[in-house]
Amino acid sequence: MEWAELSQGLDTVWVVLTAAMILLMEGGFALLEAGFVRQKNAVSIIMKVFVDISFGALVYYSAGFALMYGKDAGGIIGSTGFFMGGDLTHLKLSISHDTYWLFQCAFVIAVISIVSGAVAERIHFRAYIVYAIVMTGLIYPIAGHWIWSPGGWLAEMGMVDFAGSAAIHALGGFAALAAAIYLGPRIGRFGEDGRTNIVPPSNLPLASVGAFILWFGWFGFNSGSTLSATNPAIGHIAVTTMLASASGCALCILFTMLRYRKADPPMAINGALAGLVGITAGCAYVSDAAAILIGAVSGIVMVLASEWLERRKVDDPVGAFAVHGISGSIGTLAVGLFAVPGTTAHAGLFYGGGWQLLGVQALGLAVVAVWGFGLTWCTFAAIRRFKPVRVSRDEELIGLDVGIHGVPAYSQEHDFLDVGSLRRN
Amino acid sequence: MEWAELSQGLDTVWVVLTAAMILLMEGGFALLEAGFVRQKNAVSIIMKVFVDISFGALVYYSAGFALMYGKDAGGIIGSTGFFMGGDLTHLKLSISHDTYWLFQCAFVIAVISIVSGAVAERIHFRAYIVYAIVMTGLIYPIAGHWIWSPGGWLAEMGMVDFAGSAAIHALGGFAALAAAIYLGPRIGRFGEDGRTNIVPPSNLPLASVGAFILWFGWFGFNSGSTLSATNPAIGHIAVTTMLASASGCALCILFTMLRYRKADPPMAINGALAGLVGITAGCAYVSDAAAILIGAVSGIVMVLASEWLERRKVDDPVGAFAVHGISGSIGTLAVGLFAVPGTTAHAGLFYGGGWQLLGVQALGLAVVAVWGFGLTWCTFAAIRRFKPVRVSRDEELIGLDVGIHGVPAYSQEHDFLDVGSLRRN
Amino acid sequence: MEWAELSQGLDTVWVVLTAAMILLMEGGFALLEAGFVRQKNAVSIIMKVFVDISFGALVYYSAGFALMYGKDAGGIIGSTGFFMGGDLTHLKLSISHDTYWLFQCAFVIAVISIVSGAVAERIHFRAYIVYAIVMTGLIYPIAGHWIWSPGGWLAEMGMVDFAGSAAIHALGGFAALAAAIYLGPRIGRFGEDGRTNIVPPSNLPLASVGAFILWFGWFGFNSGSTLSATNPAIGHIAVTTMLASASGCALCILFTMLRYRKADPPMAINGALAGLVGITAGCAYVSDAAAILIGAVSGIVMVLASEWLERRKVDDPVGAFAVHGISGSIGTLAVGLFAVPGTTAHAGLFYGGGWQLLGVQALGLAVVAVWGFGLTWCTFAAIRRFKPVRVSRDEELIGLDVGIHGVPAYSQEHDFLDVGSLRRN
Repeated sequence: MEWAELSQGLDTVWVVLTAAMILLMEGGFALLEAGFVRQKNAVSIIMKVFVDISFGALVYYSAGFALMYGKDAGGIIGSTGFFMGGDLTHLKLSISHDTYWLFQCAFVIAVISIVSGAVAERIHFRAYIVYAIVMTGLIYPIAGHWIWSPGGWLAEMGMVDFAGSAAIHALGGFAALAAAIYLGPRIGRFGEDGRTNIVPPSNLPLASVGAFILWFGWFGFNSGSTLSATNPAIGHIAVTTMLASASGCALCILFTMLRYRKADPPMAINGALAGLVGITAGCAYVSDAAAILIGAVSGIVMVLASEWLERRKVDDPVGAFAVHGISGSIGTLAVGLFAVPGTTAHAGLFYGGGWQLLGVQALGLAVVAVWGFGLTWCTFAAIRRFKPVRVSRDEELIGLDVGIHGVPAYSQEHDFLDVGSLRRN
Repeated sequence: MEWAELSQGLDTVWVVLTAAMILLMEGGFALLEAGFVRQKNAVSIIMKVFVDISFGALVYYSAGFALMYGKDAGGIIGSTGFFMGGDLTHLKLSISHDTYWLFQCAFVIAVISIVSGAVAERIHFRAYIVYAIVMTGLIYPIAGHWIWSPGGWLAEMGMVDFAGSAAIHALGGFAALAAAIYLGPRIGRFGEDGRTNIVPPSNLPLASVGAFILWFGWFGFNSGSTLSATNPAIGHIAVTTMLASASGCALCILFTMLRYRKADPPMAINGALAGLVGITAGCAYVSDAAAILIGAVSGIVMVLASEWLERRKVDDPVGAFAVHGISGSIGTLAVGLFAVPGTTAHAGLFYGGGWQLLGVQALGLAVVAVWGFGLTWCTFAAIRRFKPVRVSRDEELIGLDVGIHGVPAYSQEHDFLDVGSLRRN
Repeated sequence: MEWAELSQGLDTVWVVLTAAMILLMEGGFALLEAGFVRQKNAVSIIMKVFVDISFGALVYYSAGFALMYGKDAGGIIGSTGFFMGGDLTHLKLSISHDTYWLFQCAFVIAVISIVSGAVAERIHFRAYIVYAIVMTGLIYPIAGHWIWSPGGWLAEMGMVDFAGSAAIHALGGFAALAAAIYLGPRIGRFGEDGRTNIVPPSNLPLASVGAFILWFGWFGFNSGSTLSATNPAIGHIAVTTMLASASGCALCILFTMLRYRKADPPMAINGALAGLVGITAGCAYVSDAAAILIGAVSGIVMVLASEWLERRKVDDPVGAFAVHGISGSIGTLAVGLFAVPGTTAHAGLFYGGGWQLLGVQALGLAVVAVWGFGLTWCTFAAIRRFKPVRVSRDEELIGLDVGIHGVPAYSQEHDFLDVGSLRRN
């Protein structure tokens, strides 16, 4: 056996296992979202996650990957690698192209799953499928090319985003914001008398399982992004990931104890996730102390952003924008402040690297936010020319589970029903 | 440190981690099945999975492994390795025999868990324990010996089945069919007026968690079957696994949208699983495009097979035969069509390899199906000579949870009950 | 690339992945406990697990790790490594200190999560946070130093505890016992007429998911404790872990079939866990046969211990003491009986090693039990001087979810509520 064979085997094992961990995060998204929404829509949101993972993988295989990681054309877009064919040698990978695709596929599925929470309880299923195809085949791959592909224009300018606070979370979060605004709030969410109404999550234990699964997957997400098992940063990445999530969660518990006079469970869950999102860009670049700070700020600002969005009458049922959009933005900018010298081309502002890195991070963030928001808005507008993007009032009131998918999430029937009542064929 | 030590360490880590992933699939089976059946039987089906994993491991350790992988006797059966003792050097493994046993143990537990879904809501718990012992100690190990052990007669003929579409899924699926027919349908499933009755799944979010966990574990199942971390096929295996499951799921969503005028959630779940089952035999041998095709065909045929079984008045509560038996058969035969030259001794029919591989795959599949169906039928018939295999009508109507295990799956009691009502000692 | 780089990369991958598996066990604890308690307290117990993982990680990072693994002072306590700074070279690790911290952090979080089950349904949230800080920053690290740190006095005497039957489970279990006694039983648990009352678990499928996740994580827990991927014992460790859990579960199923005339689902779950706890100390030191025996004894004694505790009117809602305290004790002592020559400095009693190892194991166990019980009692007594440790009668009756956290675990509302009813700010 050759040296290279063992080394490549190790890298392959690392990437395949972490990719599987990231794919398991889809289970986490499904449960988190199903637990947060009302019972009558729990199945419909899980069906969206099945769309994310199935259509997402096929679209990214056909076109998305090529546009993102194919041979660069003008810093704007990739041009080879459709159906994993063509020349991909410019990627200079130690692992096979196949293996690399699987890891990247797990990423694209995460992006679209961010949006699925924001459109919960009111989007039409057909419209969601079309949007998912556009997101995974076009919107994300092109932005991802700019940030992560050799030759991408933001990458060339020096933007750094280790595992995707910008490319994944801010993009997904701003897309989620656009979708939530475009669709409008759920019926009854904001009363005609100006009051804000709320429902308690239908199944908090289920939402918590989701959070724990996401937490687990994030170790694959961040550490796996080294793509190499001999990268000496792996341990540090895992530790900053742990510390930021712990501080995001702990601070949200303390902050809501002060602010609401109770430790708020949904905020504790989202606080852990906010910390994870916040550290995703800088996990390999910042110190332990900075990770704790980034997590804490991400958690608290997430709470405030959730409140602000509510006051603005934007209805984001699971807090997708506050968790992914806002914390992703914080994480992207934090690299510009806290990057330790030697880990990136320019150190962060607080480490004597000057304003350069912070500037390019801010530029990249703004570009990604506008791109994600704008393209999502346009896609929904285009879909609406042909088909409704929102379910009918009746379907929304009865719930999408029975209204669209013909089956409730939870059934306490002890006897049988006639088959015709479930299958309308 | 020696070369061999590092290489063996890497292989060991790979096999132990993927074995743990496969064992986690038991959690997936438990949730999928508990979510699909009625509330009143959710605990009883989970108890069957606890039987699978606990009795299964002990029986396979004592005898099953020896009959399957012990030194070959006449191509029919293994003869060494009881309690992991005796000579096992013929296995020529890079990892320890211990580690190999753990991986194979995870497989046998999966086989018996396939059957547990088909007998849900009506089998007697004692009878199930006996059947589980026979399945894990005799039925599966002997069939597995034929297909996978050095010297097994189907292996010698050239049958290939990378991770077990035939040895695991078709065997389990046909055993499930026999069990479902032998036990007969649940009371009320098929009305006296000839109508087919149905209940909506009691907990679809739980069933979905199960599916996501199974999906995750399958990456261990298929990729781990290399047993070596330096096998260059690992990346390809993981990718074909991903593509087939995505296409099985996506096609089932689209197909049910056309056929039932709604995207059917249980079919989307089973579609993903059908794709995974279908690619299990060929994941290392077929191209990406073939994987997508195999997944799509497995998904759609699974839907049709479910309907056909229902018309034939066979009651398989979770679709075990349609998912595992049918898709496992498709996957086994597909290798005979799509095996890429160089990956197997004979290439598939569509790659100029002629009919040979397809013929031996078909023979092997037929043997496994008859063996699984026949032995399961005989085992149930033998059990019934001593003890009932089906619960009483009263127990079935009240549900097996309270009827057999004395405790409901879900309790909304806020106060305490007298201990005597739960423990009958 | 250097030899060392590849070897260190392999060890790092192994430790990071197994650490992530152990952290996922928090999801398992949360679900197991939420499923076992009443609906009205399901969220509150999950919030405790969020405290465990978030406060636990931060406290262990700040101080706990240093007291446990810092440079030894007098065999009693560590003195370097606060905030992961200072000299840690005495640890002589192949992996980075960072990576080692992550793995140990996953352990400390497990310890505190053991206690969270025993105090369920009645502890005040603020008091729990304070206790969690003391446990993860002081009680566990000091006991852990004695057993596991180079120079710790029990380690020097020859105590062996591979992955923590004593250091983790007996410590956590006896702490749980102290907490359960200190807090007193839940209102209504033991009737005024001397009768013992019980509630069925609120969500057994959820509890089962928890058990399967814990089972999965345990392979990381035990095998990962090698800290080295080239440790030839990894396969054996995983196999003894599997066998002990299988035999604990199988024996509990059979034993309750005999004793209660029904296979008891909560006991089957706890039986698997008891087997896992029991083998944790000896997984690397005992034979397969001994592992099966240890698992069986752990399972059966766990059932008897649960009954005994109930007769003594101690209210431990999830069986934390029976599972962790008792099985952890059995496992610790079992090493003194069954340690195979060559695996430890002195072999076990049954292998001709004489009484020495058994004696030191018994001493270490007694020390850990007294330490865990005593310090926990003192901590609760100290907290009560300032704040109540138990919720008010009204809060307990209405449930901690609504009473303390302002939100129910499960909501079937289909419409919206006024926001003011959920947030009291």
